[in-house]
Formats: sequence, structure tokens, C-alpha cells
Amino acid sequence: MSHAPLKEQVTRLGDLLNVINLLNWDASTGMPNGASIHRGQQIATLSSLAQNMILSDELASALAQEKQQAGLTRHQQRSHQALEQAIAHYKKVPASLVMEQAQLVAVAEVAWREAREQNKFHLFQPYLEKIVDLKRRFADVVGYENHPYEALTHEYEPGLTVPALKTLFAQLQARLLPLVKRVHAAPKPDNTFLHRHFPVGQQRELSTQLAAMIGYDFQRGRLDTTTHPFEISITRDDVRITTRFNPQFINAGLFGTLHEAGHAIYEQNVSPALSGTALTLDLFGLYAVAGASYGVYESQSRLWENRVGRSLPFWQNHYATLQSTFPGVLDDISLEQFHRAINRSEPSLIRVEADELTYDFHVMLRVEIEMGLIDGSLKVSDLPGFWAEKIQAYLGVKPTTDTQGVLQDIHWSKGMIGSFPTYTLGNVMGSQFMAAALEQQPSLAIELAQGNYAPLKQWLTENILQHGRTYLPHELLQRATGKGLDATPYLDYLEQKFTKLYQLSD
Amino acid sequence: MSHAPLKEQVTRLGDLLNVINLLNWDASTGMPNGASIHRGQQIATLSSLAQNMILSDELASALAQEKQQAGLTRHQQRSHQALEQAIAHYKKVPASLVMEQAQLVAVAEVAWREAREQNKFHLFQPYLEKIVDLKRRFADVVGYENHPYEALTHEYEPGLTVPALKTLFAQLQARLLPLVKRVHAAPKPDNTFLHRHFPVGQQRELSTQLAAMIGYDFQRGRLDTTTHPFEISITRDDVRITTRFNPQFINAGLFGTLHEAGHAIYEQNVSPALSGTALTLDLFGLYAVAGASYGVYESQSRLWENRVGRSLPFWQNHYATLQSTFPGVLDDISLEQFHRAINRSEPSLIRVEADELTYDFHVMLRVEIEMGLIDGSLKVSDLPGFWAEKIQAYLGVKPTTDTQGVLQDIHWSKGMIGSFPTYTLGNVMGSQFMAAALEQQPSLAIELAQGNYAPLKQWLTENILQHGRTYLPHELLQRATGKGLDATPYLDYLEQKFTKLYQLSD
Repeated sequence: MSHAPLKEQVTRLGDLLNVINLLNWDASTGMPNGASIHRGQQIATLSSLAQNMILSDELASALAQEKQQAGLTRHQQRSHQALEQAIAHYKKVPASLVMEQAQLVAVAEVAWREAREQNKFHLFQPYLEKIVDLKRRFADVVGYENHPYEALTHEYEPGLTVPALKTLFAQLQARLLPLVKRVHAAPKPDNTFLHRHFPVGQQRELSTQLAAMIGYDFQRGRLDTTTHPFEISITRDDVRITTRFNPQFINAGLFGTLHEAGHAIYEQNVSPALSGTALTLDLFGLYAVAGASYGVYESQSRLWENRVGRSLPFWQNHYATLQSTFPGVLDDISLEQFHRAINRSEPSLIRVEADELTYDFHVMLRVEIEMGLIDGSLKVSDLPGFWAEKIQAYLGVKPTTDTQGVLQDIHWSKGMIGSFPTYTLGNVMGSQFMAAALEQQPSLAIELAQGNYAPLKQWLTENILQHGRTYLPHELLQRATGKGLDATPYLDYLEQKFTKLYQLSD
Repeated sequence: MSHAPLKEQVTRLGDLLNVINLLNWDASTGMPNGASIHRGQQIATLSSLAQNMILSDELASALAQEKQQAGLTRHQQRSHQALEQAIAHYKKVPASLVMEQAQLVAVAEVAWREAREQNKFHLFQPYLEKIVDLKRRFADVVGYENHPYEALTHEYEPGLTVPALKTLFAQLQARLLPLVKRVHAAPKPDNTFLHRHFPVGQQRELSTQLAAMIGYDFQRGRLDTTTHPFEISITRDDVRITTRFNPQFINAGLFGTLHEAGHAIYEQNVSPALSGTALTLDLFGLYAVAGASYGVYESQSRLWENRVGRSLPFWQNHYATLQSTFPGVLDDISLEQFHRAINRSEPSLIRVEADELTYDFHVMLRVEIEMGLIDGSLKVSDLPGFWAEKIQAYLGVKPTTDTQGVLQDIHWSKGMIGSFPTYTLGNVMGSQFMAAALEQQPSLAIELAQGNYAPLKQWLTENILQHGRTYLPHELLQRATGKGLDATPYLDYLEQKFTKLYQLSD
């Protein structure tokens, strides 16, 4: 059978996924309200064309033929593997199940919004029960090694096992729980001045300047404002971020922008040789993303937002700029006061507002719930109670309403179960990468202290970013840091930072 | 062979074309510079998928099957015809010719920009020669009745013949040439105050208000700014317009917005029953547009821009709003002075800046050139001389540079030959529609005088807009006005308007 070469076919597939990303970007930025009814259909049509391409005889033939060639590169081999996994996946998962999920989540998200508005979990409960049931069937079809949850996390974090996850969480809790207790028992730094008036125009100016400074290329990107900030990559030369500016709170726009810029720097620095290959595509999600996994993707946003953006050296270099951007507003606040305020930690109920020290407990809570739902040890009807009990055990706070608790995230209503671990994996891997960079290249600490971010970006590009999805997360980690997944650098960093910030005795 | 129903297949095809429109919109509005290299490829991929769908066995089977059904509606019959014509077209035109054109225009447009910048036609000449040669071969392949030019205009204005076009132009010239002479011999109204300072923010506010007032629905649309204003319809519920605001000249943004809103009102008021059918698609251009033809499409923008927007009753209703939008700026200018200024006519060299009275001469000049190039009676190398001679004969002005003459339009560099007639057809048909509306519904004149535009929109919707591409242009014209193509209403309107404005003796 005559067919186009594999590379050309995959480039066409990539074009479709790039366009799907643009459709999503547009839907979240400036699409007219009336357009929403057709947007889902447009995305469904392109997704279905992409799936047909993946399952086509033409692709299978080209793949089989290229595999027989001598001297295949690492890129080609890994591409073949990714394509084969996708083919196997779409062959295994019946179209009826995909359709069932699409129909279910369409109504489930509406029900979730309604339940949230009315603050009544029981309105969402029957939908979540159906989603869990569907995901359990999905896990059975896809298969797993140790635990059905792995069939779900696999789409976001290939190679992650439940035993590894449990080990990681135990490691985190052992040191974080006592640290959180000590920090929260200490006097809290004042942070009321972060809620002074910061005009949105100036916030945009400052955020743009800082994002460009850490290495986000605006010639190949743009910044818009949306209710829920995100980064999306149409191609490596068209990587867009959004943020949300609150004139009464500077953190949201400032660190939100650095976070999304961190994602964007990843996507913009993937090797151009990988453009149009399977190594810049998530073939399960039918989404163009070059990050090796959602965890590695998150490691870069966390690294730039927290390890760089919330560090003292960063503000030693840029606090004067911030002060002069908002004339008079922070004249009475010293650099040290500002730095302590932006790092203030306190127990809270809402994940997306949580600080660096407490964030992972919000994640662990959700992952425990997801595992329990998928292995059947936890019932949907027990969620509000379980949630309240857990968050109190971890952080000493208790939701008084469902919206403050179990209804706060959109993920489950969209059929996303298994993605939460990647937030904590991002924190952990981000610190592993940072520790490795500083160890391998000791001059980095000086360069960061001087406000020179190019060398760090360069190290990250060489060791992580350029490779796209060429390596699995654990391979990438091993290559870049010489180690497997390990929370030690992250825990060391948090302990050191908060001990100092809160002047705790060592 | 088992296949999806025709309606479903065409809906998928429509989704692709809708998405192509969004890709074009994005490319012209906010796409990062760096993204341009991949955008062409994305559009090419979707176009090629669309073309494959049109030529697929699956579509052919579904079409054959549906045609055998009893009781087919007018919509279905016309859809079948449109699909059959497209299938025949793509079967006739060899892929090699399409590829050759794509490659040629990619370099030709660059050469045109370069030639324009350097003001040297000879830099563009060899590319235009190749384009003309290709278009002549294309006409031979596609076929035509009287003149090879018809093979080209057919894509923009189905059913238009060269004899009909020549008759129309003769009709126009017979009355317009003496009228232009009389008007240009009369004293010119002052229009310097149109160049006072009109801040862009207020211009946007005013344009938005007026566009909404004539019936553009912003819930299903949005207004952006671009160098070259346009309207593009993703779906009937997502119809976007752009405009260009010049703080030193109020006309550009004001009438530009009304013009694009006129297009948009067309697209927004196509019957929802036609969404996802071939009757909202240009299958030759692989572009989603519901206008019956480019001429009918243009008739609506001209109608709202000129027949409504430049009329005295319009400003009797809205001049006070305009004055208060720019406090103090036009306090010394009366309504009558303003109305005369926005309608001032003078000979000019640049088509896109031409006034209502002289515009068609710019069009006729181009069409004469296009016909001559395609039938071989005119050589590309003779263009600058021919151009200068003709424009002088028509309007008494002569270009001193190529950029003021033959290099001013982008169309030819993009391979578009045969689209220019539709601008004049728009003027002519717009006035035919307006005359028919006023005759059939005499209350319209009073309603327009009261600033009530809904009844006119309603008449247009019933007679034109709702039908999309259900009727060919001449069928639509016949149904709505009871007549074929006729310049009389347009010429009557121009004569009456300019005789009065310039106080010429009858």
C-alpha cells in the first residue's frame, strides 16, 4: 500500500493537535458567548480526525516500514514507542466508552457548577458516582500493574506507580507535618500591604517585564487575562500564557504570570527538531504539549515561580522596580518585609490559594480520595466527611461548606481523575532539578543573585526542555540529576527557607 | 459501503472550514510574529483534509443515496448541486496545479511587498507573469462559456458572464462619467475637520454603539483592530469584525466599522437551519462564508455603510451622539457640513481610499486589465502604462509611481484574479435591494428616518440573508427585486444624492 512517510503523517497529526490547542485558547480568551455551542463540536471533529489518523492503516504501514530501517535515532525509537502505545490505547478503549465519557462530562460539569453555586454536594454526587464507575471500567480495559489508579495516572505521568506515590507521600508527610506545625505556631509576618491598590495596567507592565526577564520570549508568545490562568502551546513558536490581575492583591497576577511563564519557557525551548513529531504531542489527551509529563511540565512552572520568583535574591534585584512601578504604594515596606509577606504560610481550605508549604497537603488529600474511589475502598457519598476529616488532620482547618471542600475543583467533573499527583511531583522534581543544576554548575547561585537568569534557563534547556517527550519522566530525572524520584531536595529547601523566614530555631 | 449520513459528513467538512476561518482570524489579529511559519502549514493541512472529504468515496456514496430520496427540499437539492460542482472542480483541477499556485503565491506575495517598498513594478512583473500564465491554464482546465475570465470569476460570483459584465460597465460609464465631471467641477465642501483629533478609545465606543444599533450582535461577535479591516464568520454565532482607527481621521474607523458590521449582519442572520450544511460554505475557496456570492456579500456592507451610514437621516439621528462622544471637537460644525464632508468626492489614485462616486472606476480599470491578461490581449509588461492611461481617462489623475498605481492591491500577488467585479456588483445589487425594500415596504423610509434599523434588517433577512447560499446570485436578485442585474437604482441614487449635495442644477 502506498502511503506518505511517517514523519509527514505525524506532522499532519501534530497540526490537528496544534489547532485543537488554538481552539481551546480562543474559547478561554475572547470567544463570543454565543459561539460556545459550536466550539465543542469543532474540537470533537478534529479530535476524531486525529484519532482516525492514529488508527489508520496508512500510519500503521509507515510505522512498520520505518521501524525496519537501520540506524534509527533515539528520537525515532521513542516516537515509534509513543505511537504504538497510542494505537494500542485507542484499540483497547472502545469508542462507546469514549462517547459515554464525553456525554457524561458534558452534563457533569453543568451539575458541578450548579452544585457549587447552591453549595450542595448531593446535586453533584450522582454524576461523580457515574464518572467513578466509568473510570473504574476504563482502568479495567486499559490495564495496570499494581493498582487501577495507575491506569489513570499513566495518561498524565507515564511510569508512575502507586507504591512509588505512596512512598513519596510518606516521605513528604514525615518532614512536612512537623515543619508546618512549627511554622504555624510562630508569629505570622504582616502581609496586609500586599492588598493595597495595585492598578492593573501597571501590574501587566511589571509582569510582562519579569516574565521576559526570566526568559519568556514575547516574539513567540502573548499574555492575555482570563479567570483561570493557563499556558498553552500552539507550536514552539506560538506559546501563549494568560493571567489574572487583582487590583487589590499583587500576588495573583505577579506569581501567576511567573508560573505560566515557567511552563511557556519549557515549550519555547524544546528542540526545533522535535516540532511536528510525536515527541511534542500528548497522544492520549489529543493535546499538543512538549513537556515530558504533566509532572515535569509542572516542575518548570514551580521552579520559576517559587524557587526563583519567591527567593530573596530575586527581590533584591527587582524590588526597586516593583516599588517604582507603583509609585508611593510600597515606600514604607522594606525588601525583607515584602519577601516575608509573599512567603507567609497559613492553614487554608482552598488549594489554588494555598502557599508553598501547605500546598502538597491539598494534593495528597485529593490523591488519597481518588485512589479510594478507584479501588472501591471509598464511596462518593462519604467524600464530604472524609474530606473534612483529612484536611483537619493535615492543616487543622475544617470546611464549613461543600464549596470550600469537596466541590472546589473542576477536575472530577471533567472526568479528570489521576492528574492531581502531578502537582506535587512538579514541586518535588523542580527541586531535584534545581539542586542538580546548582551542584553541577556552582556559578549559577551567583548568577541568580545577580539577576542573570539565562544560565539557569540554559541548564534547564540542555538537561530537560530541549528533549520534549524523548525521555520518560524517570529517565529524564535520572539523566539530569543522577537519581530517581526523591523528595529530599524539596524538603531540605522548604525546611531551610521557612526556618530562616520564620526565624525558627534549627 | 457503510458510511455516515450526508448531513453528518458535511457538518464535519463545515467544522474544518470554520476552523480554517478561525486560524485566519487569529493570524490577522493577535498571533505572535514567530508563529507565522507554522500557520500556513496548519491551514494547508486542514484544507487538504477538507478536500479529501469532498473527494471521498464516503461522501459520494452518501450523496448518491440521498439524491434518490423522495421529497427533497430546496435546501437539499441546492446542497447536492454545490457538492457536485465542488467534486467536479477538484477532480478537474490537478493537484499539481494547486500545488504550483500555492508555491508561486508564497513567493509572489513577498516579491510584491518588496516591489511596493522599492516602488518598482519590474520586481513583481515576472511573478505576475507566472500567475497569469497559471490562471490561463487553470481557466482552460475548468472551462468557460464565453470568455476564459468567467472560469475565474465563477469562484466568486457564480453565473456571472463576461457579456453581462460588459453591459453593466457600459451602463455605469454612460451615466457616471458625466456625473463625475459635473461633481468635480463644482466647489468642494470643506472636510478638513474630519482630520481633527478623535481619540481612539472614543472612536471605538462610538463605532461599537453604531454597529450594535444597526443590528450587529456583539453576543455573537467581537470587534478587534487590524491594519486591514475584515469580517470573518467562524459560525453564525461567532462572527468577528475588525477595524482600523486613525486618531487624525474619523472616517476610516467609523465607516469601516459600519461596512464590516454590514457583512457581519449577513452572516449572523443566515437561517440556523443552514448551519453545518454546504449552503454556508465556499467549497472552492475552502472558506466558511454564508453569503450567496462575494457580490451579494459586498452588497450588504455597501448598503449599511453608504445607503444607511452616509445618509442625511442617519446623521440627523446620530450626529449629536458623535459630537458628545468627542466633547468640543465638532461643536462648530453643523450636521449639514458634516454630512457634506463625509460624502465629498474627488478624483484619487488609491482604490481603498476612493469615495462612493469614483470607486467603481477603480474597479472597472482592474477588471479590464484582468480580462485582457487572461484573454492574452494585454501583456503584464504593459500594465503600468495601461493603468496610467485608463485612470487618467476615467478620473483625470495619473499615478507618478507604481505603488500609487499597479502595485497598490495585494489581490494578484495572492493569485486572486477575478474577484474585483464583485465590489461593483455589491454597489449595484445593494441599491437594487434597497430600492426593492423601499418599494415593497414604504414605511421603511420613515423608520430609517427615525433611526429604527430593525425593519430594514428584517426585510433583508427575509429576502436575502436567511437563505445563505440556497440561491445563486441572479436567482436571489430575481426573487428579492423581481429583476435581473440592473444598475439603474444605483445610478439614480448616486445622481440624486450628489446633485443635491453639490447643489447641481438638474
